[in-house]
Amino acid sequence: MAESWVNYAERIGSDLHLELPGPGGRRAALTAALRAAVRSGRLAPGTRLPPYRSLAADLGVARNTVADAYAELVAEGWLTARQGSGTRVAERTPPLAPAVAAKASGARPRACAPRDARPLPARHDLRQGTPDVSAFPRSAWLASYRRALHQAPNEVFGPGDPAGRPELRAALAAYLARARGVRTEPDRIVVCSGFAHALRLLFGSGGGSGSGDRGGGRGGGGRGAAEGAGEGQVLRGPLAVEAYGLPFHRELLAAQGVRTVPLPLDGHGARVDRLSRERAVLLTPAHQFPTGGPLHAERRAAVVDWARARGAVVLEDDYDGEFRYDRRPVGALQSLDPERVILVGSVSKSLSPALRLGWMVLPDRYVGDVLMAKGEREAWASVPDQLALADLITSGAYDRHVRRMRQRYRGRRDRLVAALAERAPHVEVSGVAAGLHAVLRLPRGTERSAVEAAARHGVALDGLAEFRHPDTDMPAHDGLVVGYATPSEHAYGAALEALCGALAPGGTRVS
Amino acid sequence: MAESWVNYAERIGSDLHLELPGPGGRRAALTAALRAAVRSGRLAPGTRLPPYRSLAADLGVARNTVADAYAELVAEGWLTARQGSGTRVAERTPPLAPAVAAKASGARPRACAPRDARPLPARHDLRQGTPDVSAFPRSAWLASYRRALHQAPNEVFGPGDPAGRPELRAALAAYLARARGVRTEPDRIVVCSGFAHALRLLFGSGGGSGSGDRGGGRGGGGRGAAEGAGEGQVLRGPLAVEAYGLPFHRELLAAQGVRTVPLPLDGHGARVDRLSRERAVLLTPAHQFPTGGPLHAERRAAVVDWARARGAVVLEDDYDGEFRYDRRPVGALQSLDPERVILVGSVSKSLSPALRLGWMVLPDRYVGDVLMAKGEREAWASVPDQLALADLITSGAYDRHVRRMRQRYRGRRDRLVAALAERAPHVEVSGVAAGLHAVLRLPRGTERSAVEAAARHGVALDGLAEFRHPDTDMPAHDGLVVGYATPSEHAYGAALEALCGALAPGGTRVS
Repeated sequence: MAESWVNYAERIGSDLHLELPGPGGRRAALTAALRAAVRSGRLAPGTRLPPYRSLAADLGVARNTVADAYAELVAEGWLTARQGSGTRVAERTPPLAPAVAAKASGARPRACAPRDARPLPARHDLRQGTPDVSAFPRSAWLASYRRALHQAPNEVFGPGDPAGRPELRAALAAYLARARGVRTEPDRIVVCSGFAHALRLLFGSGGGSGSGDRGGGRGGGGRGAAEGAGEGQVLRGPLAVEAYGLPFHRELLAAQGVRTVPLPLDGHGARVDRLSRERAVLLTPAHQFPTGGPLHAERRAAVVDWARARGAVVLEDDYDGEFRYDRRPVGALQSLDPERVILVGSVSKSLSPALRLGWMVLPDRYVGDVLMAKGEREAWASVPDQLALADLITSGAYDRHVRRMRQRYRGRRDRLVAALAERAPHVEVSGVAAGLHAVLRLPRGTERSAVEAAARHGVALDGLAEFRHPDTDMPAHDGLVVGYATPSEHAYGAALEALCGALAPGGTRVS
Repeated sequence: MAESWVNYAERIGSDLHLELPGPGGRRAALTAALRAAVRSGRLAPGTRLPPYRSLAADLGVARNTVADAYAELVAEGWLTARQGSGTRVAERTPPLAPAVAAKASGARPRACAPRDARPLPARHDLRQGTPDVSAFPRSAWLASYRRALHQAPNEVFGPGDPAGRPELRAALAAYLARARGVRTEPDRIVVCSGFAHALRLLFGSGGGSGSGDRGGGRGGGGRGAAEGAGEGQVLRGPLAVEAYGLPFHRELLAAQGVRTVPLPLDGHGARVDRLSRERAVLLTPAHQFPTGGPLHAERRAAVVDWARARGAVVLEDDYDGEFRYDRRPVGALQSLDPERVILVGSVSKSLSPALRLGWMVLPDRYVGDVLMAKGEREAWASVPDQLALADLITSGAYDRHVRRMRQRYRGRRDRLVAALAERAPHVEVSGVAAGLHAVLRLPRGTERSAVEAAARHGVALDGLAEFRHPDTDMPAHDGLVVGYATPSEHAYGAALEALCGALAPGGTRVS
């Protein structure tokens, strides 16, 4: 009955037969690829798409990811869905978009600007991963950009330093020391475009391109068979990771031939006492992603001791370190041993992921290797943007923006906690001392139905299961990951209301 | 006597034992890596560096590349060079750079902002590959950036469309149709960060990351043994390339496991009649890089016929298509068959390589695959920059800038031709009907000495040998590649004077 993905891929050619990026990425990429297949006529009108359960199983993605992609394309008119007949390619596909129709609609607060899109049904976006994009500090950014562009010497418009602009590295060194307790200097910072780029630079084989299959893949072993393959890598696997984390990171590492080994989590964070023969460990010490707690002080010390004893390295994903509310700030783990910890941060949560600006703070011995991996022509961040960020930081405007957003997000968190205490008291809210998301703990076995109830109430969010490492043996936790930073300020109230409606006793029965 | 690179790499650890990117990239990366090794103390004071001839041979780079890297580090004080004692790590290395010292010096017109750099001796930079960076249209760019940022809907600051902003794709579709005769629509354009990024998206294995070693490299065959390895690739090798071209591209492809097969060049351009079983061919049809001629009309038709007959694809590197002077513009090859040709362009020559903005114009059937390879979190171009470029194009400011630069570069070319006709009449100037560089043909066997004479006169430029495919059997041409666009306007006269001094009869004897 259910057409397998393999058959499906064969029938429409190789076009969709690819690895998919992370949750958000997978949804967007799958949607785009399906849309392209329909547009081009390779998926003929009337063609029945595979049931989303089987496609999800074949692709190894959540059922929700496929369901979302289908729903989006139904809303756009490319597909039709009818009870009993499944999802099919629409008989009359939307006309080719004229240039003007491709203009951004602005209707969807978080997702990609849809290509050829018709307006989507309004919905409440509480998926984690994005700041309130309506709060981007346009005036401050523009002022910094203008100053930077006026002051810049001509050479900034030539080929750049693979490490990134010295102005930005100097500003980051000072800022990170002050705000995060990081101990470094500008020469040990390498600008990158975000955490994924950092992972590629550290674990990618094939210097220069930051990528590449040097050993040949056709006859090689299966994925994961060769741990830490590739001579040109800065770091090698196996890499220990937290049992809950971004699947996107795990998949990117797997694509580089790096095996990830899950560490269980408990109330003190990752069980770093389980570390053994791994060569590196990836942690979110300030605010475990997604479960939300800080790594206990003893474990912070223990993991650094382990790294020293084993000659290993700790990779610190400081993804939302700026946002903490109730407790004393937890400094960067990096400060415990700058020669054993690589800290990676970005402006994706503090300003916008659209800038593609991040940084790696490196032990001295890795700087040369990372620069070689990056090369001069790697896709680094826009130089004017780098200069603008340097100005934003040194002028104090970056701090002001972060403080303003911290107030705003704290207010949202408080509203979330209060509303749930009143309307859904059976739900336990956790992980809210910091960051841009909360975890709503649910009774065992109820996560899937809660996600579905939320969807019926127009609320998009992820369950904890999305983030669970497939190889972990720790008990599963049921929970919802609520990105309370994602909506704009005026949309937050309605999103919260809808969420409470879905979670209130009886809410799951609303259709 | 000569310590091999392997021994050297072993002694200082694995830090420099990496593939190197292209000529400019190799120089910068090698310099940075050596500097880092000295800074960190891994190369102890007094350590003798391998002779540059042997290091060059081991790395497979030009002797000049190593010599340049050493010279730069000597100028910075990290190394010392003494006749008879070779190049050594300086006894007292420069102090660690305080943040302020890392500020850009602005002294070097083209190269990277040096890290920890002391001012370098002034020199004349006639290396190809860069526009006159002093001519970046700051005011126009800033005006477009401001307009774009003011008009943008909030959603632009969220996670982006993997294809790039629709505003930019619409602007590019219209511009490329008008200026280059490209036949496309916004939905078939994917924004990228330049040609190298396009190559990685097209030939990289491991979807999502745009990179990665899926098959495992440790036990795999040698580089090039597995042609077109990796299931996730959009295109597969072997890839035919022009016998002269950017080594950086060949190396990037080799790192992806793609074998390149050189096509000989003659007066009509690449010998596309030699194409046989390759699955794709990479060409520079408008202005062969670096030799400078256009691909003859019959060959343009022939290569498209070949692609149709073989189910193959033509990759058109339209790297300087905006700049043509004497002859009727040669439209993009892509217009002959938009379903068989992928055109790749960027603003790196027209505006600045520091923006990292480029585009791929794709046959419909590849759009989905490329989007899957790119993924949502790939290091795409800054979204505000994308919007600014869209505004620059639609406002007409981009055209005005290109026209102004075309005038300027044409003037420089005319001065070059006139000066050489007078001062070095034995030098034949070719490839000057278009583009930002000229090729000075030299008598057989004189290229190396001419490059060295130029260096003695303070002129940095490359010989044709730098660009020759190692596997080609076509006769070698001796020549110099002169990037006459590279200096600023006020520096060009002195650069030209120095070049003529080096090439004038007797010039090679000046010390």
